[in-house]
Amino acid sequence: MITDRTVERLVFPRLECMPGLESYGGFRAVLEAPRFVMEPGEASKQPGALAELWEMLALEGVRRDSVIVNIGGGVVSDLGGFAAATYMRGVKYINIPTTLLGMVDAAIGGKTGIDVGPLKNQAGAFHIPEAVIQFPELLETLPESELVSGLGEMLKYGLIASPQLYRAMLDPGKFIEAPATLGGYIKECAAIKERIVEADPYDNGQRQWLNFGHTAGHAFESLGIEKGKPVAHGVAVAHGLLVELILSHTLLGYPSAELYPLAMTLREHFPPLGSECKDNGRLVELMHHDKKNCTGKGVTFTLLQTVANPVTGQQADSDEISTALDIYRDLTGGK
Amino acid sequence: MITDRTVERLVFPRLECMPGLESYGGFRAVLEAPRFVMEPGEASKQPGALAELWEMLALEGVRRDSVIVNIGGGVVSDLGGFAAATYMRGVKYINIPTTLLGMVDAAIGGKTGIDVGPLKNQAGAFHIPEAVIQFPELLETLPESELVSGLGEMLKYGLIASPQLYRAMLDPGKFIEAPATLGGYIKECAAIKERIVEADPYDNGQRQWLNFGHTAGHAFESLGIEKGKPVAHGVAVAHGLLVELILSHTLLGYPSAELYPLAMTLREHFPPLGSECKDNGRLVELMHHDKKNCTGKGVTFTLLQTVANPVTGQQADSDEISTALDIYRDLTGGK
Repeated sequence: MITDRTVERLVFPRLECMPGLESYGGFRAVLEAPRFVMEPGEASKQPGALAELWEMLALEGVRRDSVIVNIGGGVVSDLGGFAAATYMRGVKYINIPTTLLGMVDAAIGGKTGIDVGPLKNQAGAFHIPEAVIQFPELLETLPESELVSGLGEMLKYGLIASPQLYRAMLDPGKFIEAPATLGGYIKECAAIKERIVEADPYDNGQRQWLNFGHTAGHAFESLGIEKGKPVAHGVAVAHGLLVELILSHTLLGYPSAELYPLAMTLREHFPPLGSECKDNGRLVELMHHDKKNCTGKGVTFTLLQTVANPVTGQQADSDEISTALDIYRDLTGGK
Repeated sequence: MITDRTVERLVFPRLECMPGLESYGGFRAVLEAPRFVMEPGEASKQPGALAELWEMLALEGVRRDSVIVNIGGGVVSDLGGFAAATYMRGVKYINIPTTLLGMVDAAIGGKTGIDVGPLKNQAGAFHIPEAVIQFPELLETLPESELVSGLGEMLKYGLIASPQLYRAMLDPGKFIEAPATLGGYIKECAAIKERIVEADPYDNGQRQWLNFGHTAGHAFESLGIEKGKPVAHGVAVAHGLLVELILSHTLLGYPSAELYPLAMTLREHFPPLGSECKDNGRLVELMHHDKKNCTGKGVTFTLLQTVANPVTGQQADSDEISTALDIYRDLTGGK
């Protein structure tokens, strides 16, 4: 079993006391299995930690027919999943996500990997987990900022696949108050991702729908790091969704009136990013360098015709992106 | 392009001057591509070297549509192939083997990996190369001991799949004199392995045919390391073939008269292993610990009914193995 120190401290006591836990077959055995405990945080997702993990698996006598169980957020399931993909050329594994981002995204779909120095997910493998076990009750252990970050990805699932889910996520106040009530929506997000991954496991087509909001989102994330003010992934994505909806309006006629509700949600429930007009050049540059967009001459986006109608492979040039960033700032009240 | 210092020094000058080289499309470009040069030898096949290689690939701007070319023996293609399997979750690669073992075995079939500490191929992936390019002329750069090691694996291919190839390999003197004349037989071995791998890419059945001779062979290899007298892989396999033919006689009625020609070839052309009766216990123990045989109660072997008629999943107990080791020593003139 692979986890991190924070999860071990905050989540395990809850897991152990959860009513009905014994009904999950051999789950008690999981909590008593040999345990690899990482330091929490992205810094643990490096080749050195992977090597330590391989050594520990060998030392504990993990075999080809063993099963690895990852309990934690995206860092745990990315590293643990990659170890499962490669230890003895592949053993089975199960993810038990403990963050909202993990439940709706990172734990599902089999993209595993580690960072190489500053480069995110530069080494990895496709390796689908045998099962993803969801305990929405665990969300009660999360700080609000983590919940908000997960809600950014949930907005995305609504936009690319479900108008009803999208409408629910536009009013997230009550979920932040009582996160366990997200259970049904988490199931829906997981089902959407699983359906898309099944249609395109190796990321050659439809899987790019999942990238909606992420081209601009990753640029916001990188800019935050450069400025020494890091932004949570899902928060950057939430703002990226609005930028890419504006591009969807410009390039595909997405209805402009539908931009306002998302802008309102961002203003009310998500922290502002504080990017300014003078950042436009750098943001466009960062989008050009993102490895997912480096094929064409412009920057490649997945955009929407309407909610639940995504179109992949849409090119936008620097002027179009820069204009969209200006409109995004107008709508969200930035400078 | 990935290689090692010995190959760079001995093989590259030959590659550059090879007549007709220009006809291999962009091969000149390969020799001028960014180059990762490992220290030669198994000690380079460790997590640290893999991490260095990932960093170098990122630094050189290797992309998803780039192709990695491995030029070298099994260590180079195992490490380089694993890097190709995992860099950006998988890029294409080509193997150009420079050893006989590489040409007939390691470069083919997509098993890639590294050692983790003392444990061989403990981490890795299945990733089939786009192409394997064979230059039998390169065998002229090899010391005789490397050729003999490769001939051990070629004997195996004959035994599991081709009586005619087996007969040719029983008289290897002329090939050791002029190794480039092995060209046609190398092609045959590669074709046999490709056929088996295609039928069973993930090693759940027929691929275990390729393990013939290796259960005993790996035990001889490990014993050599323990005694401080390491044995070349193919030499250990050649001796392992005879041990497992004897078991084939005991358990499946493989004709006993056909044991002598192989014993003769071992005595004439392969270095002796110097194992003794008192090693039997340790050898049997090592076979039990081999990760490929840890499923049943006895030790699991692939054995032959006749030449080219392998049968997987054959169990032998400690006494049967010990007796086979004694007969093996009688036949090869050991103590």
